[in-house]
Amino acid sequence: MDGRDFGRELSTAVVAFHEAVGARLGVTAVDQRALALIAGKGPLTAGELAKEINLTPGAVTGVADRLERAGLVRREPDPGDRRRVVITAIPGAFGRVFAGLSAAMDELSARYTPEEQQVIGDWVVRTIAVLKEQTRLLNGPPGRA
Amino acid sequence: MDGRDFGRELSTAVVAFHEAVGARLGVTAVDQRALALIAGKGPLTAGELAKEINLTPGAVTGVADRLERAGLVRREPDPGDRRRVVITAIPGAFGRVFAGLSAAMDELSARYTPEEQQVIGDWVVRTIAVLKEQTRLLNGPPGRA
Repeated sequence: MDGRDFGRELSTAVVAFHEAVGARLGVTAVDQRALALIAGKGPLTAGELAKEINLTPGAVTGVADRLERAGLVRREPDPGDRRRVVITAIPGAFGRVFAGLSAAMDELSARYTPEEQQVIGDWVVRTIAVLKEQTRLLNGPPGRA
Repeated sequence: MDGRDFGRELSTAVVAFHEAVGARLGVTAVDQRALALIAGKGPLTAGELAKEINLTPGAVTGVADRLERAGLVRREPDPGDRRRVVITAIPGAFGRVFAGLSAAMDELSARYTPEEQQVIGDWVVRTIAVLKEQTRLLNGPPGRA
């Protein structure tokens, strides 16, 4: 397997899918990444989200506005400190758009033996780590790419 | 393996990587997808690219402008019909940014036996097909998502 070719085509397909989701919901790719963070790490303040996603506070306000308009998040007072506002993912709203993909991916997964699924899962986990490291390098000091 | 969880995290990592590439080169995710098409399908006219990528001719002009400024494509007369202008990928320019990722992915691939690589490759090819089909459905008539 040549990691280069498959990787390029897979990543193009992922980006195209996210663009289609974005067009459907009126949210950008960055908004979707923010939503994945909010859903994964629990309710976040705008400041926490800004730090996680490497955006300015002003940009995060725009992200949260679009996600709220699309019915994907809501802003609410932090139950632990009601002076703080946290952004919470609305369960189900995003999932509905991804439902078809999830079902198709589960169906695909079922084609493989448990041992094969383990190999695929291992590769996916390691690929995620590679992508995160390469992203970190690209976001590093200029001139190192 | 749960296709849902892995898929979401993998696709988030892919999108984050593309954003970092875009920030580094001054091109958007759509520009990168256009570049992948130009590189994959050979020189394309602006009209052909517009059709492939589902953009208006005006939007394609902006895409081609940004890619040209970033040194990733050039516009040149079609050798077969010099009244037509085609957009050609500049070999190497984009590859240099992806070189680190390609090397890391080749290294990762080498951890697996040929049989395991075959399973992974098969899964990647089928995942690409699933993503394309789901993208097609999302881009279909409104109200079907």
